[in-house]
Amino acid sequence: MNDPGPIPPAGFHMTPDEFRRAGRAAVDWIADYYERIESYPVLSRVQPGEIRAGLPSEPPLHGEPFEAILADLQQRILPGITHWQSPNFFAFFPANASGPAVLGDLLSSGLGVQGMLWLTSPACTELESLVLDWLAEMLGLPAAFKSSGPGGGVIQDAASSAALTALLVARERATGWESNEQGLAAPLTAYASTQAHSSIEKAVRIAGLGRRNLRLIDVDDTLALRPDALSRQIQADRLAGLHPCFVSATIGTTSSNAIDPIRQIGQICRAEGLWFHVDAAMSGTAALCPEFRYLHDGLELADSYCFNPHKWMFTNFDCDCFYVADRAALIRTLTILPEYLRNRATESGAVIDYRDWHVPLGRRFRSLKLWCVIRHYGVEGLQHHVRQHVALARQFTQWIQADDRFELAAPAPLNLVCFRHRAGDDFNRTLLDRINQSGALFLSHAVLRDRFTLRFCVGQTHSELRHVEQAWHRIRQIALDLEKSG
Amino acid sequence: MNDPGPIPPAGFHMTPDEFRRAGRAAVDWIADYYERIESYPVLSRVQPGEIRAGLPSEPPLHGEPFEAILADLQQRILPGITHWQSPNFFAFFPANASGPAVLGDLLSSGLGVQGMLWLTSPACTELESLVLDWLAEMLGLPAAFKSSGPGGGVIQDAASSAALTALLVARERATGWESNEQGLAAPLTAYASTQAHSSIEKAVRIAGLGRRNLRLIDVDDTLALRPDALSRQIQADRLAGLHPCFVSATIGTTSSNAIDPIRQIGQICRAEGLWFHVDAAMSGTAALCPEFRYLHDGLELADSYCFNPHKWMFTNFDCDCFYVADRAALIRTLTILPEYLRNRATESGAVIDYRDWHVPLGRRFRSLKLWCVIRHYGVEGLQHHVRQHVALARQFTQWIQADDRFELAAPAPLNLVCFRHRAGDDFNRTLLDRINQSGALFLSHAVLRDRFTLRFCVGQTHSELRHVEQAWHRIRQIALDLEKSG
Repeated sequence: MNDPGPIPPAGFHMTPDEFRRAGRAAVDWIADYYERIESYPVLSRVQPGEIRAGLPSEPPLHGEPFEAILADLQQRILPGITHWQSPNFFAFFPANASGPAVLGDLLSSGLGVQGMLWLTSPACTELESLVLDWLAEMLGLPAAFKSSGPGGGVIQDAASSAALTALLVARERATGWESNEQGLAAPLTAYASTQAHSSIEKAVRIAGLGRRNLRLIDVDDTLALRPDALSRQIQADRLAGLHPCFVSATIGTTSSNAIDPIRQIGQICRAEGLWFHVDAAMSGTAALCPEFRYLHDGLELADSYCFNPHKWMFTNFDCDCFYVADRAALIRTLTILPEYLRNRATESGAVIDYRDWHVPLGRRFRSLKLWCVIRHYGVEGLQHHVRQHVALARQFTQWIQADDRFELAAPAPLNLVCFRHRAGDDFNRTLLDRINQSGALFLSHAVLRDRFTLRFCVGQTHSELRHVEQAWHRIRQIALDLEKSG
Repeated sequence: MNDPGPIPPAGFHMTPDEFRRAGRAAVDWIADYYERIESYPVLSRVQPGEIRAGLPSEPPLHGEPFEAILADLQQRILPGITHWQSPNFFAFFPANASGPAVLGDLLSSGLGVQGMLWLTSPACTELESLVLDWLAEMLGLPAAFKSSGPGGGVIQDAASSAALTALLVARERATGWESNEQGLAAPLTAYASTQAHSSIEKAVRIAGLGRRNLRLIDVDDTLALRPDALSRQIQADRLAGLHPCFVSATIGTTSSNAIDPIRQIGQICRAEGLWFHVDAAMSGTAALCPEFRYLHDGLELADSYCFNPHKWMFTNFDCDCFYVADRAALIRTLTILPEYLRNRATESGAVIDYRDWHVPLGRRFRSLKLWCVIRHYGVEGLQHHVRQHVALARQFTQWIQADDRFELAAPAPLNLVCFRHRAGDDFNRTLLDRINQSGALFLSHAVLRDRFTLRFCVGQTHSELRHVEQAWHRIRQIALDLEKSG
């Protein structure tokens, strides 16, 4: 294609010294970014295509210095960033990160190991088992989820993948372990509340059950799943000749942070022989604090459980912790051992090979960042910051309640506040647009009982009282302006 | 649980200055590691449980300084590392990394954005589309795979996930888009060679087709899929009332780097109306060089394609580039738009929302590391190093051919050499154990036509002539010792 010209003796690779210099520049760029982050509009203001239009349409033939890349990151990429690490980010659920997590992940990138087998880096497997056992202890999870018993934990990329994995085991168990071999034939049904995350439907579709075999069960006044309605639906399905196999309950729904009654649902699943998955992606982290551990009441009845340190536990994406009470069932569902992966350690049965615990084969050393986070903060540090976020959300809740123009749209048990202006859906839609266009903060929305609702979630690492105060003042001011102009 | 004691005013978070210091220490740790990496045994020598036993069984109550974590990484974790970044790592397929990739990933961690929607960080989506279009150009992929046409590319975690995604679209298309809705009912069949990666079987099981509906097609003398055998099997299945839907071909099989005849298989798929997926996870990277672009001959007949920059293109895991010729089919298969993700940009249809292109919802800014790699090396730099690896493998092949005691076990078209000692399977098994126990290098194995075979793959970033020379001398010496002792 072209004459490469004279090649340097060591080729085009960074030398260790160049890596030190460029690495220092990258670390400083991030530190500078965090120092300036409040000066950027939280929600990016670019138009579709704008970022791409500012970049060369063709790949470079010749290499460029790292400084040039950093300069382009600042000038050409940053305007297209919505600042998830801003303390004024209150939208969706957070993806909070922290220094020790970012650096733990850096060390993982540097080591660059694959953890598909114990053999391919024993420490990658053993630290993961250990740290997930630590977390089981820290969250007060049932003993069955620890690797010392019949179960154990594994890091997945996201709660979506955890839900899919759980559903696959449920499917296999319900078909006498025959779907894997024969293909899916029996009409299996799965259950979750109307408020469950879209990943449950996605999993049901991927696993071949079909969306119409996912039953979305009615909720009560707190938007939590109604066990009586679940029982009735299961009975109706059995009478219709269908085969119920899987129930997913949520601790902290995406729309409103509703908490399904785990114990009652678990009892139904036990009685009916259904796989019981508990999705605590967002709110599981709260159980770090003993006063919130009631969230997990009844969890000993669950077959699987997940929570996401990459949402609220200061650990950058991706890091979903997925636990099963019976690892043999999980492994039986997903195991494949081609010849090129055979080795003595695997055949001895004395080791975990995490490749059999999820969809992909390859896996990075993700426990390293979790280990760094837990050691940096200590249990007390993590508890402190979770409590702070909940306290800030409660403060915000009180301000809402004290202002006649606003109302709460749902209970706010933890760090998510769903609220609305009393002036109706159109007003609230416009209010949300104006708030986000201001650049001062970023909220998102939900529709609860057919009404448009603003969501205010306090979970960003650096959100403090002043940010929540500023947010409330800004929301009130924009609402006031709107009331006048309307 | 405990009295947290006095809390520092800013809580337990790292300040930007602490991050600068700890970040510099982490960067230096990695640079030091690379400088010393050849002094470690490539394959970890620890026993099962040994790493875990050296670490505290309980999580720390109080936080610890970052230096303490780094010291433990060095003393307690490193002995449990199998050194994938060592230039003496010749096992499996590589997971090669590079300075610009590691630092690009660090910047992604620092920005900490979620790219599930265009809105949630426009640059995350637009840079990904751009860089995947660059790569389509760099690899000479068909125009249909570019985002300017009806198709486009997306980064997935692994080729396993790419294969699953492709199979799901195939399943939906073959069932008139009804499996998602009604559940899987028709007996669908899928096809790959006996040499295909285990991820194809895993995908077939996950998607509910059933393992017995995956046909493993016979191979020719080069271990490549036989199109005539594929045709016959498809006809036989149709006669039996089954519904063929999906064929996966491989460019560079895991066992021996065999290259399936893409054009012939593609013609069969077109004639039969089957989805044609091409898995070039390992060897796609070779097409960076015009002289290896023959590998992709016929690729315009494929519906989907993937290759892994995290194997051979100096980009740390995870980074699988997955392309489809018809993105509408992909999106139709996986899309879900819950209310809490609705936004004007999505509804305008003017943007890509990558959440609909794979299983998980959340996604990190993975294109940043690819962008850093391509800009650091330039096209010429990447070509240079790929050519070097192939040249080194050819050198090794010549040494094998020149030594009467050894033989090639399969053609070595690129950077994987499959060879064996002529003394039989038991000898070769012992030889491999001794080689790996030496610590000087790490090889893995395959079984080709029922015979135990050693695999020597040259793809680690820093592997140079001297490493391959040392490896050959060591292999010969160990074989000589074994011959004598036997």
